[in-house]
Amino acid sequence: MKTDLDRLMAERGLDAFIVLGRAHNNPIMYYLTNGAKLTVAEVVKRRGQPAVLIHGDMERDEAAKSGLITRSRNDYDFIGILQQEGDRRKAMVRYFAKVIVDLIGVRGNVGVYGTADVGATLALLTDLRQVLPGIEFVGEADASIFDIAMMTKDANEVERIRRVGQLTAEIVAETVDFLRGHAVRDGKLVRRDGRPLTVGDVKRVIRRMILERGLEDPEEVIFAVGRDAGVPHSHGEEQDELVLGKTIVYDIFPREAGGGYFFDMTRTFCLGFAEPEVKATYDDVRGCMETVIAAMQPDGLARQYQELACDYFEARGHPTIRSDRTTLSGYVHSLGHGIGLQLHARPSLSSIGTNEDRLVRGAVFTVEPGLYYPERGFGVRIEDVLYVDENGQFHNLTNYPKDLVIEMK
Amino acid sequence: MKTDLDRLMAERGLDAFIVLGRAHNNPIMYYLTNGAKLTVAEVVKRRGQPAVLIHGDMERDEAAKSGLITRSRNDYDFIGILQQEGDRRKAMVRYFAKVIVDLIGVRGNVGVYGTADVGATLALLTDLRQVLPGIEFVGEADASIFDIAMMTKDANEVERIRRVGQLTAEIVAETVDFLRGHAVRDGKLVRRDGRPLTVGDVKRVIRRMILERGLEDPEEVIFAVGRDAGVPHSHGEEQDELVLGKTIVYDIFPREAGGGYFFDMTRTFCLGFAEPEVKATYDDVRGCMETVIAAMQPDGLARQYQELACDYFEARGHPTIRSDRTTLSGYVHSLGHGIGLQLHARPSLSSIGTNEDRLVRGAVFTVEPGLYYPERGFGVRIEDVLYVDENGQFHNLTNYPKDLVIEMK
Repeated sequence: MKTDLDRLMAERGLDAFIVLGRAHNNPIMYYLTNGAKLTVAEVVKRRGQPAVLIHGDMERDEAAKSGLITRSRNDYDFIGILQQEGDRRKAMVRYFAKVIVDLIGVRGNVGVYGTADVGATLALLTDLRQVLPGIEFVGEADASIFDIAMMTKDANEVERIRRVGQLTAEIVAETVDFLRGHAVRDGKLVRRDGRPLTVGDVKRVIRRMILERGLEDPEEVIFAVGRDAGVPHSHGEEQDELVLGKTIVYDIFPREAGGGYFFDMTRTFCLGFAEPEVKATYDDVRGCMETVIAAMQPDGLARQYQELACDYFEARGHPTIRSDRTTLSGYVHSLGHGIGLQLHARPSLSSIGTNEDRLVRGAVFTVEPGLYYPERGFGVRIEDVLYVDENGQFHNLTNYPKDLVIEMK
Repeated sequence: MKTDLDRLMAERGLDAFIVLGRAHNNPIMYYLTNGAKLTVAEVVKRRGQPAVLIHGDMERDEAAKSGLITRSRNDYDFIGILQQEGDRRKAMVRYFAKVIVDLIGVRGNVGVYGTADVGATLALLTDLRQVLPGIEFVGEADASIFDIAMMTKDANEVERIRRVGQLTAEIVAETVDFLRGHAVRDGKLVRRDGRPLTVGDVKRVIRRMILERGLEDPEEVIFAVGRDAGVPHSHGEEQDELVLGKTIVYDIFPREAGGGYFFDMTRTFCLGFAEPEVKATYDDVRGCMETVIAAMQPDGLARQYQELACDYFEARGHPTIRSDRTTLSGYVHSLGHGIGLQLHARPSLSSIGTNEDRLVRGAVFTVEPGLYYPERGFGVRIEDVLYVDENGQFHNLTNYPKDLVIEMK
């Protein structure tokens, strides 16, 4: 949580931090500014002091909504500096130097964060080092203070995710109704005008349902049929038709409009009927999911659940990423990931490398085992979102059944 | 254009470049990968050689759509390295060093580009300098090779922008129809259920119209009434009501769904009638627009048109950002900006600093004079998109009239 930031800064020896970049699609900026709709912003915080938001002069009203202490770029004479320096690179250095001296000082370790133009940032930091030799700019590659702080959600964040989850389950239910509302001809779903229903048609309907609920779909929903369902990150081909018996992997990860909290859920469906091998594979995925969730303990090491999923699948004869790290068949990915303002966040339920993440109290994360056999034309994945509360209780935030077959009328 | 990249690299002494970050909301990655829907990617290019796309193993199908030469991260044993190193930071350094040695070599100037996590990038480059002392990583702060290459559009890019422009004009027309379809009571627009129509209601309708046309609204449309219309970047308050005679600044900048090309247009409307001072201000903005567009020459220095706009407004008694750089009243911003995969790109029609941008052949840019009087409760902006073709002809891509008053039925 945000209240952990000072402690985390102290642990890493950071005297201050700067967050760079636009406000939009910059989760750390959103986190600190509480979603204020800014185009230009810097956030600067000294350890033990409140964060300061510096905004463009035209955005004072939006900046005020952040609840932070605010300054305008013109408080640091930004336009005057631009006019005097002419060259934008030189002007940015003088401006940032002025901000740092004012809000941080002339020496100390300063963490640099945010999603921004990496070339411009590299140029800026290179130049700032010359002007402010007492400042050490620190980049955190992994398990940064924000990765850790954002991993544990407060009650308000959990409620926002839960609400997006409820709306997402509604969308999946409505999608199923939409599919079932179609006639079947020659083993395919057909529209009223007689032409086969396509993945493109279904995605358009899904996008409208997302929008109608005040959500957005920044990463594009996955609705992948048959062989595409067997390739985990394939989004589905627009022109593909909806054929009875083929697997459909439907993975939907909307967020609150304007860049807020994500949800993420997956269901696999077969229209009308499922082949025995698909049914058997589905049962293995569902069994794996139930087994790992039943085993989960608060503060449990996340990687052990990935190991458990591999144990489960290998015992049933499926190749896994553990048995062959380059396999494209079987269980080919990690068990899950944290979720919040980022779609993929901590904790990571992966056993690659030395992943020390734990299912800490306050964590919200996905559990998404899957089995993929593109060479046999199908794939299966099921995904729910879980939350560990402060008492160590696990809550499944995904209120939707797990039936494989959609009975057609 | 892309074909300029080798020349631009040579001009800047770059032997190669690397583009980092996710594919989504990373315009340079989108540009190079032709919009392939990747989550993980690196693009590496040596000067004079074709670009190479390195993708995650699960995304080989999407990567193939880029048309680039592709490699998988596992071709560099990415997961093996992760497993051996354990620590993700160390693994990333080894992986990138392997990629650079293979595709670039052990010495040279390597430009670094992309929208990415600046902390992780800072850490990565710090470590890579130790491992590959012959490589100089170069950040470009301004007028980078991509700023310049992307400034000039090829025929396909112009067609895509033009098409988004046509759809955008349709949306504005439909919005006006929607507003006119409402009854007026006590000087306000009211819905059929008797409650006043709000900005939130209108924005919901606009978002639906954007979506129905295969577009998205990543930056959130501006629909700002009255005093809010007088603050250029205010997006409008959801609960504001639509009151006859107040100015509405309606600034809409959708892009192709999935992160493609933007359009950007603004109209200012008054419902029913306009006060004389609003009408006079509107006429000044419209007059300014016509004057600067008429003056534009191919390859003209962009800043001179901002100067011309300031001349025009100052002659009519309006404060400008040139006469007082901190003014919040009058003409408070630049004349326009390039547009493409970024909403704000080159050329910049600004006179701040030493802006040497020119209206080069192939450029697509906005012209958007405005006058703001928040203290008097109104603001006016009009914005069109122009394109300079290879023969130096200017084309206005904004096919929509410029009438201030929307007559209510």
